[in-house]
Amino acid sequence: MTAQLHCFGESGNCYKAALTMALSGYDWEPVYVDFFHGAARTPDYLALNEMGEAPVFVEGSLTLTQSCVIQLHVAEKTGKLMGGDRDEILRWLFWDGQKGTGQQGSLRFLMNFLPEEKRPKEAIKWLSGRVMAALGTLDRHLQGRDWMVGTAPTIADTACCGYLYYPEPWGFARKDFPSIDRWLDRIAALPGWKHPYDMMPGNPSDRA
Amino acid sequence: MTAQLHCFGESGNCYKAALTMALSGYDWEPVYVDFFHGAARTPDYLALNEMGEAPVFVEGSLTLTQSCVIQLHVAEKTGKLMGGDRDEILRWLFWDGQKGTGQQGSLRFLMNFLPEEKRPKEAIKWLSGRVMAALGTLDRHLQGRDWMVGTAPTIADTACCGYLYYPEPWGFARKDFPSIDRWLDRIAALPGWKHPYDMMPGNPSDRA
Repeated sequence: MTAQLHCFGESGNCYKAALTMALSGYDWEPVYVDFFHGAARTPDYLALNEMGEAPVFVEGSLTLTQSCVIQLHVAEKTGKLMGGDRDEILRWLFWDGQKGTGQQGSLRFLMNFLPEEKRPKEAIKWLSGRVMAALGTLDRHLQGRDWMVGTAPTIADTACCGYLYYPEPWGFARKDFPSIDRWLDRIAALPGWKHPYDMMPGNPSDRA
Repeated sequence: MTAQLHCFGESGNCYKAALTMALSGYDWEPVYVDFFHGAARTPDYLALNEMGEAPVFVEGSLTLTQSCVIQLHVAEKTGKLMGGDRDEILRWLFWDGQKGTGQQGSLRFLMNFLPEEKRPKEAIKWLSGRVMAALGTLDRHLQGRDWMVGTAPTIADTACCGYLYYPEPWGFARKDFPSIDRWLDRIAALPGWKHPYDMMPGNPSDRA
């Protein structure tokens, strides 16, 4: 049965789930959510996910939301991307949701997808400080390591890289975080890897 | 063996772990982290938790960080607070880390624990909008339900209430969210419940 991922290309949270499926050879297809035109706030969508968020994963009678829950399902069903200590993997999933992609997504949104005159400059400055501090934690963790946990790629990797391949500027420069930089190259060299805009429908150029 | 929770009373993230242990009858004791004087940024503390965060849970040779990982460990070890669908419980843990306590903690910090002249007003306004929207999601979810998941208290409840008993003002008024209000009363009536300032050392009045 082909699983469906309700998603859009601009979302790193969707990418976390999509990349996990791509790297583990999961049978899935994307279903486009036109997020920027309010598709995640319609009554039908809220019936699918009361949180009003993407991604949503549907596989037969199973519906899952929250990118990390989808990642765990895929990893546990395939037995892939789950080598290494489970508590350590979970720890980075939770850290990423709060301090990593959770903050990066907001910052990138404010700096790129709001009209320039509506961007809250002080909020952006405050959030940037938090995002950069968290990227420092990630870079230090990756010093001398190939992967986030253990000796092989896991869903901790496909979580923490969620927003780090996007081209839109939000203050993240790979050269400032050399261990992150090399780790992103390692992930991108894995069989099945694709850039988010090549993996899911939806791209800023659609709205240009 | 008595588990130790490195924690401080002002932290709702610590409270999530402490309350989970209190409600499940776990053998634990708090170890005070003097967070407001930088205790979570010392080399010794960073060796314990490279993320520089509290809580940290230590039980013999096992060290766990991230409040939700500690909650899962306690629930799985005791068999308590884990009734109901596991994916649904996990979903709310991840939601809470990003949209619930994850944002409430920052907002409460900015509005109460920074000197008044250093409070970033526009960042507070932006973050308040996000926090209130998320509380709306939580309140709607609790309409017509006694507990977050299933028919009994779980760690989804002890997660999502993490910052909601504190007295410091950050814009949350229980009367504005009637389903949250009644749910907080239900949690507070459970055997073993204590207010965060009665459960862990560290209280704003210590610094008054």
